[in-house]
Amino acid sequence: MEENVLIFGHKNPDTDSICSSIVSEILDKKNGWDCTKAVRLGNVNKETQFVLDYLGIKAPELIESVEEGQQVILVDHNEFNQSVIGIEKAKILAVTDHHRMANFETSDPLYYNAKPYGCTSTILFEEFKAFGHSVERTEAILMASAIISDTLLLKSPTTTEHDKKALEELGEIAKINIEEYGLEMLKAGTALDDFSEEQLVCLDAKNMEKDGEKFVIAQVNTVCIDDVLKRQDKLEDVIKSKIESNGLSLFVFAITDILNSNSEIIALGARVDAVEKAFDKKLVNNRVFLEGVVSRKKQLLPVIDKNI
Amino acid sequence: MEENVLIFGHKNPDTDSICSSIVSEILDKKNGWDCTKAVRLGNVNKETQFVLDYLGIKAPELIESVEEGQQVILVDHNEFNQSVIGIEKAKILAVTDHHRMANFETSDPLYYNAKPYGCTSTILFEEFKAFGHSVERTEAILMASAIISDTLLLKSPTTTEHDKKALEELGEIAKINIEEYGLEMLKAGTALDDFSEEQLVCLDAKNMEKDGEKFVIAQVNTVCIDDVLKRQDKLEDVIKSKIESNGLSLFVFAITDILNSNSEIIALGARVDAVEKAFDKKLVNNRVFLEGVVSRKKQLLPVIDKNI
Repeated sequence: MEENVLIFGHKNPDTDSICSSIVSEILDKKNGWDCTKAVRLGNVNKETQFVLDYLGIKAPELIESVEEGQQVILVDHNEFNQSVIGIEKAKILAVTDHHRMANFETSDPLYYNAKPYGCTSTILFEEFKAFGHSVERTEAILMASAIISDTLLLKSPTTTEHDKKALEELGEIAKINIEEYGLEMLKAGTALDDFSEEQLVCLDAKNMEKDGEKFVIAQVNTVCIDDVLKRQDKLEDVIKSKIESNGLSLFVFAITDILNSNSEIIALGARVDAVEKAFDKKLVNNRVFLEGVVSRKKQLLPVIDKNI
Repeated sequence: MEENVLIFGHKNPDTDSICSSIVSEILDKKNGWDCTKAVRLGNVNKETQFVLDYLGIKAPELIESVEEGQQVILVDHNEFNQSVIGIEKAKILAVTDHHRMANFETSDPLYYNAKPYGCTSTILFEEFKAFGHSVERTEAILMASAIISDTLLLKSPTTTEHDKKALEELGEIAKINIEEYGLEMLKAGTALDDFSEEQLVCLDAKNMEKDGEKFVIAQVNTVCIDDVLKRQDKLEDVIKSKIESNGLSLFVFAITDILNSNSEIIALGARVDAVEKAFDKKLVNNRVFLEGVVSRKKQLLPVIDKNI
C-alpha cells in the first residue's frame, strides 16, 4: 500500500520529534494502518543522531513542504508556524502532542490526543498499552530517548509521574541503564563547538506569535554556559539579522546547563521588556541568568507570552 | 471537596452538550476526581428536557460567564466564540470534542481528546471502557440520547461505526428500544409552535469566524418544513437585526426535516454568495432547498466556510 499519510514533528526537530514520528508509524502499522510514513522537517541534531546510531537505524526522509490536500499527522507540535510549509492547506488527520495549543485550526473534525506530559513519547507508550501491543527493544529505546531528552533525565519541571513510570518501564524492556545511556546521549547533544553561530541560533528555535507580534525562543543545551557565552557578539549579530529579516519583536536565546539545571538568556528586540517583566530582572549586556530554569515550555514561554 | 472545576458544552446547548457534561462529571468521579461540576451555558431545549424528565434528573446549573483563572473543562466544542463569556482568561484543563478546531488557544499544555465521531458521548463511552468502569442505566440513557440527537438516529452522514456500536451497546445496558425512544425524543424537540421567531433563530445558532468575517449557522429540526416557512417574514426580520447588531457577514438558518433528511436554508447578509457557491444553487426568495443535507458540521459548515 502506498504510504500517503505523512507523520512529522516540528521544524528544527529534536529527539522527541524524530523518535515520536518513527514510533507513531510503528504504532499505526501494529494497528493495521499501513499508509503512514514518518518524515522530518529539518536536520537531525547530534543528540538524535546518537540515538539513531545506537540503534543502527536511518533518519526519516527530509521534506521541505507539502502540497494542498496532503494528508498529515502531527506529533510533538500543533502550531502552524512550527510546522511544515503548506500546512494550512494540508488535511490534518491526527495530532499527538504535549504542548499548549495555538495557531492551529482545521476545517474538519480530527483525532487529537494531547496530554500535559513531559514528552510526546510518553503519550505514545500509553497508547501501545491501551491497544494491548507489545513494545520491542527498538521502540522502547526510541521512546526512552525522547523522554530523556525532553525531561533532561527527569530533572525538568515538565516531568510528570507518567514520564517517570514510562521511562522506568521502557528501561526494563530495553534492558539498558537509563542513567548511563541518558547522560551519554545528552552529552552527545551538547557538542556545540563545530556549529557556526548561525547554526547555534537555529538549532532549536521555535516561532511564536501573539496578537500579531512574532517572537522566537531558541534553546541550546550545554555542560558549560561560558563556552557558549564566549561567542555572544557573533551570536547577537545573527540574532539581530533574524529579527530584521523576519520582522520579530523579540528573540530569546536560552543557553541551558543540563548538569546544574540553570539557564543564561540572551534577549534582543523591541520587546525585551517582556523578558524583564517575566522574570522581574533587568537585562545586563542583553543577558540574564535564570536559576533553576531549564524548560522553554513551562518556565520561559508562558511567562514571556503573558508579558508580550 | 469543593467542586471548583466547571464542565460545560457550547452556548445554546443541545442534547450532546448537556448529556456529555453530566456524563463527564460522573466519569471524573469514577476516576476519583471529585472536584468537577457540570454546568450549562444556556436554556435546556425541549429535546434535552425530554431526556432529563425521562430520567427524573435536574439540568445542570446555568452560568453566564467565568472569572479570570477559573478552571474549566470543555465538552462538545472548542471554539471560543461558542463558549462561555470569559473563556480567554480561564484555565482550560481538558477538552473532549468531535468538531473541527478553530479559534482555540491555551497558554499551557492540557488534555485534549478529540475524535472525528458523530457525538461527544461516543468518545466518553469509549473512555468508560478504556478505564474499565461499568456504565449505569442513567449514564447509558444520557449517552444514548446524545448519540441519537447528534446523528438523528444514526441517519446523519456524521455517523461513524463507533457511534453505531456505542448506541447498540448503550441500548442493551439501558434496556430500552432505541428506535422507539429515539423517535419520541427527536419529536419532542421539534415542537416549535410556541417559540417566538427570536427564540427559533437563537435555539441552536453557532457563531463562526473566518479571516475576520463573522457568520452564524443556525439550525432547527422539524417534521414539517412548511410549518416553519410560514413564518419566514418574521424570521427574516429577526435575522436582519442579528446581522446588524453583531456585524455579521452572513446568517444561515437551516430548517431540517428529520424524517426525510432534507433541509431548507434561509440565508441573509452581504456574503450570501458563499452559500450560493457552496451548493452551486441560486437563492430564490432568500431560500434554497438542499436534498439529503442534515448535518451542519459535515454538510453546511465546511463548504460555506471554504467559500467565505
